[in-house]
Amino acid sequence: MTIERHGTTTRYSDVTAHDGIVYLVEVPQSIAANAADQTREVLASIETLLAKAGSDKSRLLLVTIYLRDMSDYDAMNAVWDAWVPAGTAPARACVQAHLANPGYRVEMVVTAAR
Amino acid sequence: MTIERHGTTTRYSDVTAHDGIVYLVEVPQSIAANAADQTREVLASIETLLAKAGSDKSRLLLVTIYLRDMSDYDAMNAVWDAWVPAGTAPARACVQAHLANPGYRVEMVVTAAR
Amino acid sequence: MTIERHGTTTRYSDVTAHDGIVYLVEVPQSIAANAADQTREVLASIETLLAKAGSDKSRLLLVTIYLRDMSDYDAMNAVWDAWVPAGTAPARACVQAHLANPGYRVEMVVTAAR
Repeated sequence: MTIERHGTTTRYSDVTAHDGIVYLVEVPQSIAANAADQTREVLASIETLLAKAGSDKSRLLLVTIYLRDMSDYDAMNAVWDAWVPAGTAPARACVQAHLANPGYRVEMVVTAAR
Repeated sequence: MTIERHGTTTRYSDVTAHDGIVYLVEVPQSIAANAADQTREVLASIETLLAKAGSDKSRLLLVTIYLRDMSDYDAMNAVWDAWVPAGTAPARACVQAHLANPGYRVEMVVTAAR
Repeated sequence: MTIERHGTTTRYSDVTAHDGIVYLVEVPQSIAANAADQTREVLASIETLLAKAGSDKSRLLLVTIYLRDMSDYDAMNAVWDAWVPAGTAPARACVQAHLANPGYRVEMVVTAAR
């Protein structure tokens, strides 16, 4: 069965899809922004990537959220809670971790259904 | 294909399932408990959630375990090792990370087959 | 549907597979080695395990890389970039986390298609 990929570089693809499931990882573009703005940016990118792979934000299955500082938990959640369509929230983990760029305050790993 | 969800709030679902695969994340209820007791609690909740989604603990595929302190590794493993049915252990990662509530000593992310 | 497992102990399996998808977690053997050598070792083990489960490194869907020190990011990536077949890179997350053994500088969690 074919693997679909978008935004493929030497290192990673922006999104992969196979047999009805979509996989993607997203980090912020604006590394000087606060957690709320970075979360908005990451979620907007996730929507774009899900669309490329034939899914959407009402089809999330599992999301892992990495926060550089857990003190951003409430700021991130305020954006997240407003973004998730009612009744469709995925299984979700949230843990604190330093990320590849010290300016990243949030990184999200998404598994979704097409 | 339909997504099945249980325990859905604005923020997360306790468990999601789609096309033969179950996804869930579990944290402890008793935030003052030690790592062994929190692990017992998390694993008991995982069993309940797997049952709701038509799976069980002999059908685990991949588990990521986050520990607040890696010094709890042996205490967590003693409970884990006794809980996993012989011959059915999943692929398993274990890493240290601060979690959403400072009282959480363990969080588990589970992918299982129905 | 049957779950295939290889290298199953009381605690974990080296690799599991179900319905066209392979799941595996790999840590280094040489705990005194530097990040580049540990990455080479982990990637070689991943190739072996993928082969056991009927997949290969051109079929990766999602990889999470844990680094003990993010200062090893460039050293790990140099090995990773040369290892991934052109045009087949997976969705990839990379976060910093202390791992089960203080000598582990890298741990990788892989989801791949058969």
